[in-house]
Amino acid sequence: MNLKKMKLYTFKLRNYQSVGVEKNGLLFDLKALFRQHKTETGGSGAVFRNLLALIQSGEAGLALTRNLYELAQPAEGISFPFGSVKILAPYRPGKILGSGVNYNGHFTENPAAKVPKFPFFFSKITSAVVGPGEPILLPKGVKQVDYEVEFAVIFGKTCRKLTPETAMDAVWGYSILHDVSARDIQFVDNQITFGKNYDSFAPFGPCVVTKDELPNPEKLAMKCFVNGKALQDSGNWDWIHPLPDYVAYVTGMMTMEPGDVMTTGTPAGIGYFRNPQIFLQPGDVTTCEIEGIGRLENPVKRDLRKMV
Amino acid sequence: MNLKKMKLYTFKLRNYQSVGVEKNGLLFDLKALFRQHKTETGGSGAVFRNLLALIQSGEAGLALTRNLYELAQPAEGISFPFGSVKILAPYRPGKILGSGVNYNGHFTENPAAKVPKFPFFFSKITSAVVGPGEPILLPKGVKQVDYEVEFAVIFGKTCRKLTPETAMDAVWGYSILHDVSARDIQFVDNQITFGKNYDSFAPFGPCVVTKDELPNPEKLAMKCFVNGKALQDSGNWDWIHPLPDYVAYVTGMMTMEPGDVMTTGTPAGIGYFRNPQIFLQPGDVTTCEIEGIGRLENPVKRDLRKMV
Repeated sequence: MNLKKMKLYTFKLRNYQSVGVEKNGLLFDLKALFRQHKTETGGSGAVFRNLLALIQSGEAGLALTRNLYELAQPAEGISFPFGSVKILAPYRPGKILGSGVNYNGHFTENPAAKVPKFPFFFSKITSAVVGPGEPILLPKGVKQVDYEVEFAVIFGKTCRKLTPETAMDAVWGYSILHDVSARDIQFVDNQITFGKNYDSFAPFGPCVVTKDELPNPEKLAMKCFVNGKALQDSGNWDWIHPLPDYVAYVTGMMTMEPGDVMTTGTPAGIGYFRNPQIFLQPGDVTTCEIEGIGRLENPVKRDLRKMV
Repeated sequence: MNLKKMKLYTFKLRNYQSVGVEKNGLLFDLKALFRQHKTETGGSGAVFRNLLALIQSGEAGLALTRNLYELAQPAEGISFPFGSVKILAPYRPGKILGSGVNYNGHFTENPAAKVPKFPFFFSKITSAVVGPGEPILLPKGVKQVDYEVEFAVIFGKTCRKLTPETAMDAVWGYSILHDVSARDIQFVDNQITFGKNYDSFAPFGPCVVTKDELPNPEKLAMKCFVNGKALQDSGNWDWIHPLPDYVAYVTGMMTMEPGDVMTTGTPAGIGYFRNPQIFLQPGDVTTCEIEGIGRLENPVKRDLRKMV
């Protein structure tokens, strides 16, 4: 058994919020585990303040987490069945770079696509992040809200100008980002920032897996279901850019910091390029699933919130 | 004298960092002022942890700051000549929305410009923020780095779906954002996110002024100098969209949070549309000046940083 492999969650139990690690189907509270074992492990419990703090703490936090994972035994107040807690978004990143065309299938389904001169990225604004179970809100007057399952890379270091050979050293882990997109806004006046960034348009989670959990990310299957029907059904074997090249490219454009996220594009099957087109409707449920990470499920509702 | 009018700075003195308020040409350390006067003022000094925390603290922090401003008297360890401290960027916002065409003059100088169907915004990624005096770094291979002085609106409340009548209540104050832009990247494949967001492409500051400092923002002159020559020389009277409409529009697209920034476009005179074109070169100095706020000066250098 490779004890380094870990899935990390942010969870809430009534008013208590903490970081948890999955082991044998249970969720172990890392703050509680640390209190229980700190004389054995040493280290600082401050790294478990939240999942972003854990990622920012680098190797020290990761080693402590691995140590606690090995020691973890089910006990009251320490371990919880997943059904008894609320899983939140892992954390709100400092920045999220969403990726344009990076799957051959998605390139082929787009009749207007040209080979871009450079890999294409846009900003997912981090206040749009929501967690599993939180609703995707359909803005009033927006008619073409589409789904896009994306494999998300989590940076663990402040890094820039990496080469493909050094790029993967900067990666902490992986997650799922649902790149919800309003096509009727995105394609008017090139309004990609607004089309991609209505509130709730960045479901994230349900967990972050450490890099060693997924040693072959290019072999992972990924699907997006709407109401249980798989409308995207592909895998990272269809990537146009190998992951080390893609990560290196981004770090050549700007400094990435611990917890920052870049996605890797979406596979074929989005609603906009279907005939007939499919767009999200109130009452729908979207499920983004990536092999080895999990399922990120969100209901779809109208945005009926009032002025604040 | 209207004692509510305030300019707030983030400053550093050796290893000490704090929030300061300008009064009679001196910079008063708000943490030190609070320690000196807390028995008189009451309140919590935690609001002065940093300038973002002060903005997030809402009316309580603002009232305490006004109170301390009134009480401030020059004293050692309390007040400093500006030349004796280092002024930093005010803070790193949660998000910055940069604005497209919003000055009639800039619209006219752009031969390709069409009237956009909706106000155009893009994301300035917040890790690109630098303060006054910090270099604008010219990335290797990028040849068309251009200047754009912009008037920046600082939000003070979590707000959404505002109307023009209610929009200005959500505004905390104003600042300057220099929307440095790499034209040769921005206009290739619509790569606006990369073209606008190389490291250091978001000089911000030198201060944040409270809203009541500038009761008529549409009357402010603004200039951008390169090496002392005014290449942009206009003012907010040239806005296409009245400020309350513009702020309301943004809050209709996404929730804005305390400290979030939106800019309001750049006036005519950018380098790209000049004949001959002018682009920033190593050794240049840019100075963005907005009436009532101040001057944001940055040297221009090559990005010679190594891989990290």
